[in-house]
Amino acid sequence: MAHSAVDVIRTKRDGRPLTADQIDWVIESYTRGEVAEEQMSALAMAILLRGMDATETARWTAAMVSSGRTLDLGGLRRPTVDKHSTGGVGDKITLALTPLVAACGAAVPQLSGRGLGHTGGTLDKLESVPGWRASLSPDEIRSRLDSVGAVVCAATEGLAPADRKLYALRDVTATVESVPLIAGSIMSKKLAEGTQSLVLDVKCGSGAFMTDRTRGRELAEALVSIGIANGVNTSALLTAMSAPLGRAVGNALEVAEAVEVLRGGGPADVVELTLALAGEMLEHAGLPAADPAEVLASGRAYAQWERMIAAQGGDPDAPLPRAAHTHTVAAPESGTLATLDAYAVGVAACRLGAGRTRKEDDVQHAAGVLCMAKPGEHVRWGQPLLELHTDSPDAVPAALEVLEGAFEITDAEMTRESLVLDRVVGSEMTGSSR
Amino acid sequence: MAHSAVDVIRTKRDGRPLTADQIDWVIESYTRGEVAEEQMSALAMAILLRGMDATETARWTAAMVSSGRTLDLGGLRRPTVDKHSTGGVGDKITLALTPLVAACGAAVPQLSGRGLGHTGGTLDKLESVPGWRASLSPDEIRSRLDSVGAVVCAATEGLAPADRKLYALRDVTATVESVPLIAGSIMSKKLAEGTQSLVLDVKCGSGAFMTDRTRGRELAEALVSIGIANGVNTSALLTAMSAPLGRAVGNALEVAEAVEVLRGGGPADVVELTLALAGEMLEHAGLPAADPAEVLASGRAYAQWERMIAAQGGDPDAPLPRAAHTHTVAAPESGTLATLDAYAVGVAACRLGAGRTRKEDDVQHAAGVLCMAKPGEHVRWGQPLLELHTDSPDAVPAALEVLEGAFEITDAEMTRESLVLDRVVGSEMTGSSR
Repeated sequence: MAHSAVDVIRTKRDGRPLTADQIDWVIESYTRGEVAEEQMSALAMAILLRGMDATETARWTAAMVSSGRTLDLGGLRRPTVDKHSTGGVGDKITLALTPLVAACGAAVPQLSGRGLGHTGGTLDKLESVPGWRASLSPDEIRSRLDSVGAVVCAATEGLAPADRKLYALRDVTATVESVPLIAGSIMSKKLAEGTQSLVLDVKCGSGAFMTDRTRGRELAEALVSIGIANGVNTSALLTAMSAPLGRAVGNALEVAEAVEVLRGGGPADVVELTLALAGEMLEHAGLPAADPAEVLASGRAYAQWERMIAAQGGDPDAPLPRAAHTHTVAAPESGTLATLDAYAVGVAACRLGAGRTRKEDDVQHAAGVLCMAKPGEHVRWGQPLLELHTDSPDAVPAALEVLEGAFEITDAEMTRESLVLDRVVGSEMTGSSR
Repeated sequence: MAHSAVDVIRTKRDGRPLTADQIDWVIESYTRGEVAEEQMSALAMAILLRGMDATETARWTAAMVSSGRTLDLGGLRRPTVDKHSTGGVGDKITLALTPLVAACGAAVPQLSGRGLGHTGGTLDKLESVPGWRASLSPDEIRSRLDSVGAVVCAATEGLAPADRKLYALRDVTATVESVPLIAGSIMSKKLAEGTQSLVLDVKCGSGAFMTDRTRGRELAEALVSIGIANGVNTSALLTAMSAPLGRAVGNALEVAEAVEVLRGGGPADVVELTLALAGEMLEHAGLPAADPAEVLASGRAYAQWERMIAAQGGDPDAPLPRAAHTHTVAAPESGTLATLDAYAVGVAACRLGAGRTRKEDDVQHAAGVLCMAKPGEHVRWGQPLLELHTDSPDAVPAALEVLEGAFEITDAEMTRESLVLDRVVGSEMTGSSR
């Protein structure tokens, strides 16, 4: 059937649903450069303002997957299950979770990205391990999954090229903040990697992309709906991201914390979320009898980490890089630490060198922020609250600036609440979302 | 003040009004190519769906005027007043109105365009007069206005270049149908030509761009509001365009009909609208005592036409071109002609060669449709209803196809209603329009 870009744009502009045929045509033609950038940006704005229903969004995602190659993970000896987080400050969960779930019997194909802005990227974190390399060929991914069971690596070239092109366009046309487009972008990459099951960690709060819970839940529902419509066993946890996750924010600092967790220790919130996501993944993988807490405690998860790191050239025993300079922020009074703003800590870590503000920047592996106290804990006047790590002492004032007013100390007692706010599983999700 | 395209788009996307500063910056940067086409199309879609208020629309238009050169019509001996029609089928009003209003003492700088699709263009019509040429330099325009008082010519290069660029973009991104953008486009060209007063003929009905009256009134209000905000004395008539105006549709056919009107004859509806618009223009020009009906009857308007045509190389006495072939459609029954669909007649004339479907096409000056009966008139079985004129007899079947079902004959009596549906003058127009 013949289509024109103007007709497709007009359909959405006037609030009507796009047909499967229109979606397939527009994504394919855009990938080939036959639908122009200015036409796709008008369509993206119409989608942002008019929304797409679950059927449209699932098809949109499938069309982006079809725009390129897909990984074939069929025929492995283990069930495949992956996790994706929408990104938060101090979110090193992947590092411990991947070997843990693999140690329980699943294969975890964790194709990851690099950080941009106030949240870090898993590849940047692992590259602080001496010798570790991020890129693997599709054949290497398959063989590592079959032998080791766990792979964290860079997404291979050619997966969902339409998404790559559209993402760059949305960035310059103020069309990022659309739930169907965000969900389609995330899921196209995950579907292209060929996993059988998928668990999403949708973060809400100051340190997350979705600052409010309603929008977070909307995104979680869209993600789960796309996965199920495309034959992937998908669920999502909605988790809190108002304070940094754990104590460490920054690449090598987070690797060290993940290793603590794999050795049976680590901050309570990181352990809680790791076990919650592991339970969810193992259920999808048909391994509900596995006991991830026991696997952590037994050291089997850590042994798996060592194999996973070594299989990609890393030395798990080598010392991690340490920053040349540290600067301590002390508690200005005694009391309970009521809040510690995740966004501010994330920006501070980025300014110290842990992150990048432009894609082409390098990161400092040793830079970041250690949170010496977490919300709910008692602090005394003069006690270290935040420890800033950097190789560039000149960066400290800018980091301190963003941390001003980033925490509150009160007299009241507080109880720590669960990070897991909600769980979203496949159901009759209908209606349009924007 | 520094702006970014993403911030400007986001402002409108989120339903907030654009500031004057944002509007000036985005139009200027777009004209220079610093705001990309894909950014402007996203902004245009956001404007289409979110609307702009009267203040924004007036500023948007002023910024488009500032993007290029303007004509300076100051210091003429006569007051300047112009008319613009949003376009209809058989709309040859400009041809008679321009010399008529000039004969009453005003200077009429009628910068016009060519036709595209089912409506004709004034320049195409006048080019059917042997020798007449459309292009004049700004100096020639001034001197002709001072000596003759009437100029119909092509818009000079460099007027409102932002509008030209944006119009081409809107055409391929389904962002044409926005009242503020349509109004801004029309008014930027009219403001750039430097007239002191302006009367708009906003057409509604099947043959017009705005098919329904509510949208037509909305457009009229936007146009008047922009004019007044930018210091031009502006009003609008909302006029019916469900049947063709007059009997002639097609370039030379329409010139002949306009000449009939200038000689004191012509179809009643064309005369009615010409006098209504002339009255409106003369009032704005400070010449309320002028009597256009008397000026028509006296032959002074025709004498002015002769001067106007001759001043641009045309021979007003030369015979107009005649089509090599005519084909008559007879009334299939006796009764009252109840309707004659303007859009169908316009498309038929275009298919016969009178119009163009692509900008680069040529037009046939002799081609078109003569409506031998008008709605409200009695017809007898077998009497000629439509006369198709063309140099390409192969085009007749396609013209007949679109005319099928384009008219209705009933038993009922009908009275002809006034073409002028409403009048819009400057007032406290507020609120946002899309």
